[in-house]
Amino acid sequence: MSYIKTPTNGMNDYLPEEAKLREYVLRQIKDTYSDFGFMLIETPSVEHIENLTSKQGGENEKLIFKILKRGEKLLNANISEDIDSLVDGGLRYDLTVPLARYYSNNIGKLPTPFKALQIGNVWRADRPQKGRYRQFTQCDIDILGDSSILSEIELVSSTGSILAKLGFSGAVIRINDRRILRAMAQKSGFSEEDFDKVFIILDKLDKIGLDGVKKEFEKSGYDASNIEGYCAWFEKDAKPKTASEFFGNKLEGYLEPEIIKNIDSVLSSVNIVSGGDFSVIFDPTLVRGMAYYTGTIFEASLPGTNLSVGGGGRYDKMIGNFTGNEAPACGFSIGFERIIGLLTENGFVVPESKEKIAFLVDSSIETNKLCEMFEEVKKLRESGINVMITSRNKNAKFQKDVLRKSGYEEFREFF
Amino acid sequence: MSYIKTPTNGMNDYLPEEAKLREYVLRQIKDTYSDFGFMLIETPSVEHIENLTSKQGGENEKLIFKILKRGEKLLNANISEDIDSLVDGGLRYDLTVPLARYYSNNIGKLPTPFKALQIGNVWRADRPQKGRYRQFTQCDIDILGDSSILSEIELVSSTGSILAKLGFSGAVIRINDRRILRAMAQKSGFSEEDFDKVFIILDKLDKIGLDGVKKEFEKSGYDASNIEGYCAWFEKDAKPKTASEFFGNKLEGYLEPEIIKNIDSVLSSVNIVSGGDFSVIFDPTLVRGMAYYTGTIFEASLPGTNLSVGGGGRYDKMIGNFTGNEAPACGFSIGFERIIGLLTENGFVVPESKEKIAFLVDSSIETNKLCEMFEEVKKLRESGINVMITSRNKNAKFQKDVLRKSGYEEFREFF
Repeated sequence: MSYIKTPTNGMNDYLPEEAKLREYVLRQIKDTYSDFGFMLIETPSVEHIENLTSKQGGENEKLIFKILKRGEKLLNANISEDIDSLVDGGLRYDLTVPLARYYSNNIGKLPTPFKALQIGNVWRADRPQKGRYRQFTQCDIDILGDSSILSEIELVSSTGSILAKLGFSGAVIRINDRRILRAMAQKSGFSEEDFDKVFIILDKLDKIGLDGVKKEFEKSGYDASNIEGYCAWFEKDAKPKTASEFFGNKLEGYLEPEIIKNIDSVLSSVNIVSGGDFSVIFDPTLVRGMAYYTGTIFEASLPGTNLSVGGGGRYDKMIGNFTGNEAPACGFSIGFERIIGLLTENGFVVPESKEKIAFLVDSSIETNKLCEMFEEVKKLRESGINVMITSRNKNAKFQKDVLRKSGYEEFREFF
Repeated sequence: MSYIKTPTNGMNDYLPEEAKLREYVLRQIKDTYSDFGFMLIETPSVEHIENLTSKQGGENEKLIFKILKRGEKLLNANISEDIDSLVDGGLRYDLTVPLARYYSNNIGKLPTPFKALQIGNVWRADRPQKGRYRQFTQCDIDILGDSSILSEIELVSSTGSILAKLGFSGAVIRINDRRILRAMAQKSGFSEEDFDKVFIILDKLDKIGLDGVKKEFEKSGYDASNIEGYCAWFEKDAKPKTASEFFGNKLEGYLEPEIIKNIDSVLSSVNIVSGGDFSVIFDPTLVRGMAYYTGTIFEASLPGTNLSVGGGGRYDKMIGNFTGNEAPACGFSIGFERIIGLLTENGFVVPESKEKIAFLVDSSIETNKLCEMFEEVKKLRESGINVMITSRNKNAKFQKDVLRKSGYEEFREFF
């Protein structure tokens, strides 16, 4: 027998206490997003291989778990040509590709704008390492078909609310705009083809400081006056109250003034809704890597950590690139697995919604006693108590210790 | 661009109203099973191909979505030998194979007995047809490591409670025992090697009646006196109150008397717990197809339909066959997709837990008005109201019609 006990490499079995925490957090996420009007949808785990390899997925396209054709189609496949001729599907590596497909498939039946909530597993054949799994859960909200800042306000304030509800006090969501990044670089004299490299270096500001950033610019051979002009932006107060305060009219001619005004409207609206439970700030140094962002970008982090617990932005071109039908879009992906990791490290205990009692029943019990017991069980359950019935072990002490891990503190024994 | 809009063949996109119903039913199932002490667990969707093809899965092993090896392992695979050398995993076709693996992998960290609840998608490359999908959700409860009838009682009463909570009044769970089926066939003179065929014919009793069954036995060439003796059992009252009443001492010498007594103890215990919301009856004609059942078997159905909405039984050998470590086991699988189908046909409306208001906001709104609006939104949300903020369409009438489908009945418009 070649039975394998361990799970597939890089994927997890979740013990009851782990699964309970995951379920609790998922419900907080679903309930809060639902309270903000996001609508749960579901797409299949298996996606057409054509959609997964349409070049919109970047590096993730190298990490696809591919699914073999079946039956005649497999027999007719020409392997000598290409091994991919054997394949017709793959496990989704994110929820964005399925969302784009879903939206174009169902648009006639959906509200416009559409506030979508999608939660599900995704799979990546990555090298497994601590905190990185080959199957993991993603939680995405996206607003499709709305180019207004209501999208940004709702995405940021709902996600901030969830972090607050999960007990992460003082979460900060930083916001910037790709077009602001570009305007600053342009005004400093960098040429368009260097922008991506410039942003990659700027993105290291947190880690290597402004001097480090300057040195990297110099190493890359950029013009000294460009470097000086660009870095001067970041010598200012790094935490400006508003984007208008930060820029004044210094980007005039390089940027639609509306873009700065919009950032500030998002800040003031979200900070009303947050009631101080979390905050949103303008951060002109925020970059975020994904090339598909076209406007605002945001990232959530917790005070005292450098860890991102979510991020997103506006991607007005992607739906069109995928499906041929343009639609403005803006999304936020909350870092579910990281949140679970942090709550676990912090010893978070899922609150019990009910009183719990375990009945340990010896195998020698007679039918009439069993019936009496169930009369009592019925009453307890009707009064809203969680009653676990289970066979009593000889070593009931050990049995109770294990059951305590699942919240059973009270025990009754029946013989 | 070869982008494909429709989902993978045989798999589903769920619209918001469908996803909402699925989520509602899943929570009812999880909460009720949890109230009975079942513990949620999670296993990966991808399982080792060795485990999926170990001959325990029967016909389902022909329906596996197989996953291609990656990297060097794929390059080193010898396709000329066997196409399966290209494969190292597959999507699970049920939750029982992963459960057996999970139990042997984690037994030291789990309570004994272990009351497991597993809910997840499974995949079968079946011919798609109405109500049968290639990705669908299974909900299984299993009690591992307990040979007592507490397993049967808890499995049946918790599942009955769920059916009642979902509004299916008068659900009936029929119970029988494989060993009773065998003893009846044996006493009637059939030989052991014919049992499976005999049961397959008996299983048609509902559809073809006792005369039909007799004819099929005759066609199969069984001895007339065997047929007569066997069919005589089923000429009696088909709905006996207890198994003891049905059998008296007629199976003496063919069956441990304990087995009949146990069925009756299950009946009396469950019928106490049910409080009339559902019922359990002894049905000596219940067969159920799966060869791996070793003891009790059960099936849930709704009055006025012949549809099974769940089934299960005891399978004391399977865990041992899979893992080499014997463990008594008993399980019940509730028919999630069928229940969703029935609720949808019946026009079931998911109860709203909150008042819902949609704010439709025109794009011309000024920042100060927006801030005022969000002051109000904050208050409403704090008072427990679900507030959706969304951009107002020019055709707001149509927009409202679509939002009503998601439970928004009250609208406010902002310009």
